[in-house]
Amino acid sequence: MIATFTDFGIQGPYLGQVRAVLHRLAPGVPVLDLLANAPAFDPRASAYLLAALAPELPVDTVFLCVVDPGVGTGRGALVAEIDGRRFVAPDNGLLELAWRRGGDLRCWEIAWVPERLSATFHGRDLFAPVAAHLAAGRTPEEAGCRAGAPSRRPDWPDDLGEIVYVDHYGNAMTGCRAAGLDPGAAIVVGGRRVAPARTFQDVPAGSALWYGNSCGLAEIAVNGGRADRELGLAVGTTFRVEPG
Amino acid sequence: MIATFTDFGIQGPYLGQVRAVLHRLAPGVPVLDLLANAPAFDPRASAYLLAALAPELPVDTVFLCVVDPGVGTGRGALVAEIDGRRFVAPDNGLLELAWRRGGDLRCWEIAWVPERLSATFHGRDLFAPVAAHLAAGRTPEEAGCRAGAPSRRPDWPDDLGEIVYVDHYGNAMTGCRAAGLDPGAAIVVGGRRVAPARTFQDVPAGSALWYGNSCGLAEIAVNGGRADRELGLAVGTTFRVEPG
Amino acid sequence: MIATFTDFGIQGPYLGQVRAVLHRLAPGVPVLDLLANAPAFDPRASAYLLAALAPELPVDTVFLCVVDPGVGTGRGALVAEIDGRRFVAPDNGLLELAWRRGGDLRCWEIAWVPERLSATFHGRDLFAPVAAHLAAGRTPEEAGCRAGAPSRRPDWPDDLGEIVYVDHYGNAMTGCRAAGLDPGAAIVVGGRRVAPARTFQDVPAGSALWYGNSCGLAEIAVNGGRADRELGLAVGTTFRVEPG
Repeated sequence: MIATFTDFGIQGPYLGQVRAVLHRLAPGVPVLDLLANAPAFDPRASAYLLAALAPELPVDTVFLCVVDPGVGTGRGALVAEIDGRRFVAPDNGLLELAWRRGGDLRCWEIAWVPERLSATFHGRDLFAPVAAHLAAGRTPEEAGCRAGAPSRRPDWPDDLGEIVYVDHYGNAMTGCRAAGLDPGAAIVVGGRRVAPARTFQDVPAGSALWYGNSCGLAEIAVNGGRADRELGLAVGTTFRVEPG
Repeated sequence: MIATFTDFGIQGPYLGQVRAVLHRLAPGVPVLDLLANAPAFDPRASAYLLAALAPELPVDTVFLCVVDPGVGTGRGALVAEIDGRRFVAPDNGLLELAWRRGGDLRCWEIAWVPERLSATFHGRDLFAPVAAHLAAGRTPEEAGCRAGAPSRRPDWPDDLGEIVYVDHYGNAMTGCRAAGLDPGAAIVVGGRRVAPARTFQDVPAGSALWYGNSCGLAEIAVNGGRADRELGLAVGTTFRVEPG
Repeated sequence: MIATFTDFGIQGPYLGQVRAVLHRLAPGVPVLDLLANAPAFDPRASAYLLAALAPELPVDTVFLCVVDPGVGTGRGALVAEIDGRRFVAPDNGLLELAWRRGGDLRCWEIAWVPERLSATFHGRDLFAPVAAHLAAGRTPEEAGCRAGAPSRRPDWPDDLGEIVYVDHYGNAMTGCRAAGLDPGAAIVVGGRRVAPARTFQDVPAGSALWYGNSCGLAEIAVNGGRADRELGLAVGTTFRVEPG
């Protein structure tokens, strides 16, 4: 299975062109779009999301990860294997947290240069062909890779005290794993103090809450409302945590 | 075939995770997203849409229906068979209209409790596995169900005099079946009187019209424009019908 | 393979219903959504996009193209074969540029009338069945077509000096092929003079640039920002080109 994790947007022309490449080189392999609106141009926020979401998918998944503001420059391109899951991505920190939290780690750099390489769409021209080859059972070497190592981002924290995603409901995912927070702690954001709860209905309609979400991140919501609008949350909004 | 009907949003991380579950438990079964932006948190408006859309799909479709503001509370979970079509859904009224309009009715409650059940994403953890089992040819009993009955909503009308969906063009679907309206009737909404027509081009550019749409609902549009903006329509906007 | 090119929107109920038809009549044939937010009601702007995107897909692709403001009126319906690629579309100019730029051209009109033909959703009722038949290996004649010719649009220019698409990042595609522009030319839009560059990082953060995009069109972007907001660009915005 191939899972795409991109900031391409779902209805535009990019994922369709990627699908065509995947289908041509890995016919019959199922493809799903895990996320099409990762924080645009933002490999750092995206890295915390990807590290949380990837373990939800089967271990034989190939992740085609493209959040790539440096496309067309000299930034490298990687294949990484993290606890069995394979990732194809630009070498811009997008895999930093998955890599840091992984146990069994391998990495290659993509040495292959496609015959046609556009300046702005390496997702289609470079990363998709490599992901397709891996999903079709080829080794990284057979897909044009050689031994390599990711550029690391030692200054990025283990958990990020910022909003990294706002979902369709207006719920705001943080870059902090819920398991690392005091279960009674409050999240203080935009001058408001948000208390923890287990699920939406544990607070009155219109009230804010935070909880450990379905991929393990602390998430802020408003029961029956939109937390993004009511609390002024967007990707990049910072907060602090207060003991319970 | 499995059809999803959800309020998850199409580009976020939810449908992808659901697809992974479906693929694992029902490999090779085609999946399509029938609707990803059903009225959020609103099983009532969603119920009128689902009842109109479901008959458009083949009778062997399994509908994975999740509009579930009560997720993580004690609300039940259902499998229903309505005129041959199978539905998996929370027991919150989402199936009320499909059930009420159906002839041949069977219902089960989902007794199975998954090993891992998040508080906020039963779509992935509870409903998707059951839908996958059914689509793969297992019986409701084999999927962990036992005889049951839906909670009913006798106070919900047979047709709903409200907007239940605004589409990508700004056209507004009502909760009223067109066949039940006087073909010459006008819909009065926001102080405007909207007359019926067969299709967009039957009225001048910029004019509003209503017509029986492709799934049988009365729908309000503006030829070449956006009815939502020009008439101030959103999910929940009420209207009245005046004889022609 | 079948590729959809529509203005249906990706999360609404239209593409799912189309998928169900395609699956029923062409089971096992892969379907991808090439574009779901083509300029709504605008076959002209859409035609320049389609002509640029179609050559990116394999030659055996069947393109199901629906931007159809005249649905339900007397406008014709076409199958065209352009350099091997097959297109199913309303006869409203949507294929004009692909046709004009093609070498090996054949055309049929769809004479088949489906048993059930809604007034507003020919994508599902008319075009999808024909596309499915072609993708399943049937000839246009077997799909209910007979010899025909497209209505032409001689007044449409070979390249269009307007924005034809704004993508998820806010980048604005023009209707002009980059190869036809002086590589040093500037695009003047909204009182601003936008100079060419090869890729985003070739200009300072926050600066505008234009470049030849991944499907060959001249595209306007802002490095790390949204060109649509910062330059006031939308589908239909005109510009002029100044020599470099």
